[in-house]
Amino acid sequence: MAKDKKLVESITSMEVDFPQWYTDIVKKAELIDYSSVKGCMVFKPAGYALWENIQAELDKRFKAVGVQNVYMPMFIPESLLEREKDHVEGFAPEVAWVTQGGLNQLTEKMCVRPTSETLFCDFYARDIQSYRDLPKVYNQWCSVVRWEKETRPFLRSREFLWQEGHTAHATAEEAQERTIQMLNVYADFCEEFLAIPVIKGRKTDKEKFAGAEATYTIEALMHDGKALQSGTSHNFGDGFAKAFDIQYTDKDNTLKYVHQTSWGMTTRLIGAVIMVHGDDSGLVLPPRLAPTQVMIVPVMQKKEGVLEKAFELKEKLGGFRVKVDDSDKSPGWKFSECEMRGIPLRIEIGPKDIEAGNAVLVRRDTREKITVPFDCLEQKVGEVLEAMQKEMLERARAHRDAHTYVATDFEEFKKTVAEKPGFVKAMWCGDQACEDKIKELTTATSRCMPFEQEKLADTCVCCGRPAKAMVYWGKAY
Amino acid sequence: MAKDKKLVESITSMEVDFPQWYTDIVKKAELIDYSSVKGCMVFKPAGYALWENIQAELDKRFKAVGVQNVYMPMFIPESLLEREKDHVEGFAPEVAWVTQGGLNQLTEKMCVRPTSETLFCDFYARDIQSYRDLPKVYNQWCSVVRWEKETRPFLRSREFLWQEGHTAHATAEEAQERTIQMLNVYADFCEEFLAIPVIKGRKTDKEKFAGAEATYTIEALMHDGKALQSGTSHNFGDGFAKAFDIQYTDKDNTLKYVHQTSWGMTTRLIGAVIMVHGDDSGLVLPPRLAPTQVMIVPVMQKKEGVLEKAFELKEKLGGFRVKVDDSDKSPGWKFSECEMRGIPLRIEIGPKDIEAGNAVLVRRDTREKITVPFDCLEQKVGEVLEAMQKEMLERARAHRDAHTYVATDFEEFKKTVAEKPGFVKAMWCGDQACEDKIKELTTATSRCMPFEQEKLADTCVCCGRPAKAMVYWGKAY
Repeated sequence: MAKDKKLVESITSMEVDFPQWYTDIVKKAELIDYSSVKGCMVFKPAGYALWENIQAELDKRFKAVGVQNVYMPMFIPESLLEREKDHVEGFAPEVAWVTQGGLNQLTEKMCVRPTSETLFCDFYARDIQSYRDLPKVYNQWCSVVRWEKETRPFLRSREFLWQEGHTAHATAEEAQERTIQMLNVYADFCEEFLAIPVIKGRKTDKEKFAGAEATYTIEALMHDGKALQSGTSHNFGDGFAKAFDIQYTDKDNTLKYVHQTSWGMTTRLIGAVIMVHGDDSGLVLPPRLAPTQVMIVPVMQKKEGVLEKAFELKEKLGGFRVKVDDSDKSPGWKFSECEMRGIPLRIEIGPKDIEAGNAVLVRRDTREKITVPFDCLEQKVGEVLEAMQKEMLERARAHRDAHTYVATDFEEFKKTVAEKPGFVKAMWCGDQACEDKIKELTTATSRCMPFEQEKLADTCVCCGRPAKAMVYWGKAY
Repeated sequence: MAKDKKLVESITSMEVDFPQWYTDIVKKAELIDYSSVKGCMVFKPAGYALWENIQAELDKRFKAVGVQNVYMPMFIPESLLEREKDHVEGFAPEVAWVTQGGLNQLTEKMCVRPTSETLFCDFYARDIQSYRDLPKVYNQWCSVVRWEKETRPFLRSREFLWQEGHTAHATAEEAQERTIQMLNVYADFCEEFLAIPVIKGRKTDKEKFAGAEATYTIEALMHDGKALQSGTSHNFGDGFAKAFDIQYTDKDNTLKYVHQTSWGMTTRLIGAVIMVHGDDSGLVLPPRLAPTQVMIVPVMQKKEGVLEKAFELKEKLGGFRVKVDDSDKSPGWKFSECEMRGIPLRIEIGPKDIEAGNAVLVRRDTREKITVPFDCLEQKVGEVLEAMQKEMLERARAHRDAHTYVATDFEEFKKTVAEKPGFVKAMWCGDQACEDKIKELTTATSRCMPFEQEKLADTCVCCGRPAKAMVYWGKAY
């Protein structure tokens, strides 16, 4: 048992030091390793498998709404990056520049893509001629680079994996519809697959994407009460189209500019899963996301018939993602390992269980132990995984709701931000000066103006002038 | 009909100008577009869909032999690239260098990975301590950069997509086994999925990978008689382990170096599919690879019941990848488009067919027309696709065999290479001087020393000294 304890004791408690707890989990659950490349990380098999599952599910949902995958070059020539003024201002300070190719200096330096609007626009300008060529609803899965100073595994790194969708439409209405449609795809994915509830809303102008007319976001609340922007969808209007001269001949034979959108989700979602569902024993994975949904742990596995039974049960559970841990570690060690890795369901099976005709199921989230006759195993496993997926979402929603506060005057606002980690709902006049002041005095930022608006008061929480919108505020990752 | 002709006439015949035929196909079948980034290309939806299918199938085959996916950083610090002497000599002249991050010059420049041996070694040196940590059988899907001067779509570009497997083993035997195992996975994949027959063999030392002890390859023959290296698998012995100090404590408590392999396949496989199977009407896709296996083309689609029937047939064929082309183009135009895009099977369905209770199937490869009663459609489609997959491989093999020659003296060798595009089998003494001479005088290179050796003669085809091995020679892409 000494060994088992060692594995568990090596995690810092989340109540003691949340950031250290987080770092411990990503290391101990073997999700990532640091690399010799500063600010970049190595995705180990357990970490990459999460991304593979996220990717497969999102990709399926994209294709169901008509998205086609493509792949653009990873480099952007400086002159291309500079074409749209707001965009280059936003990104130029944080890109990596390639200046040498082979043994020669490049005549024009190129950055490694921090995002690919400029490449898609350059392509669309050539590829789109007629209204028949519209809409273009393209996406790519790739890695991008942003030269961050402070980095944290999954949450912020110099290179990260993501998908970026880029669309072009004949009308402003269609672009707006697609922007919201993709935000909804993101929100549904987070809730249904990752069991993470999100607030859908619009970013203030201060927080919107460089070059966008409007940015929409989904915001999630982590266990420590900090917000995480989990996906964004931008409506560009015809701003990029004008900068890149993307015009089409419409049915009425006149030239018109296209209207564009872009939308992205990244590997930071893995950080969200950790920080929403994890506990002091390690990771807790929602069943739909989990690469291994069920781990069968044989007890006294050298006794005749135990391993055979374990593998027989695995066969029976062919409709789930099941493994048998037949390594020579002790059962207690294996239990701890299952917990650390967040495997939703553990099945314990030893000689006594076999004699009784039962297996013992243990839920990762509640630790609930359920004794199940072999005959009912398949059905029960299905039910328990379903229930766990549902209850994890409910618990996360309850936690978020319990950590969402209202403030109607500035003293209350400051006190809430200072003392109660979570979202604070408060009215805002629409002036960036108030946003800046709030950030300066509280470090909280505007997360979004939610689609579901409430009238909490008539006046701005900061300046007292007439309010224009209710805003979710919070400290953010 | 004028319109239909235009689409077809715009391809150069492969007999007239094979390179131009190839370029025409990649453009007209909408696989790629050139980009504003020199030497890099845009994968359009039809091109990327091929890569997605290749990736899905290969990944399934990898996982069946115990491969786990990971992801390493895309940058390699100069000092890391330089660690293994042969390796850096091979790659340093053709890498892209990042020298600036954000607004600052980097203190150490980094290249964009041309291949990731050095990153995996750096990671393995930290991650592997004990024999319990072995083997490591990791793979990553990513893009890599090599600063090529001459580029061609899919075949050679500055950035390309690939997978790179990197393994570490306790013994030399196990590393050798894995090297050959993965070569076999590649060969089976090419034959069973892409319908491309390959020659398996070992590269000569001159042609092996920078830093490898031995490189194994699969070589395919294109329609124009040129060879294409289609996948390679390298055994590194303990060379990289010594350069990167990757040691493990064995069961006997002594420190030992690991033995390593790496293996890769790239988007050039798409080029191989085009050049092995294509014809003067466009692409011909093997059914297992084809993103759309069956295109239903309604004839006189405005007549009552035609479109309904077309979509009814689509439903019936739910086990296949089927689309209905209900656009407002003429049927002839749609037929030409199906051919250009290489869709394996076309189903024509018009009022007369509906009255007769039949559909007309047209095979892309043979143009054979088959009239099939609606009742038998599903079964027949399955049979025809199966047959087509099999016969495409057989035809490619027959073509290759018909273009594989034997030469036993140098005059014959030179004449064959000059006059008969294809492989030339000839004996070799094992001396690089002969390889160099052959290349200089004929432009043919050694493709591989095949596993299936034959004794064609006693002496080297070039120098007349005793022969050590039979070699496949050929002009290569």
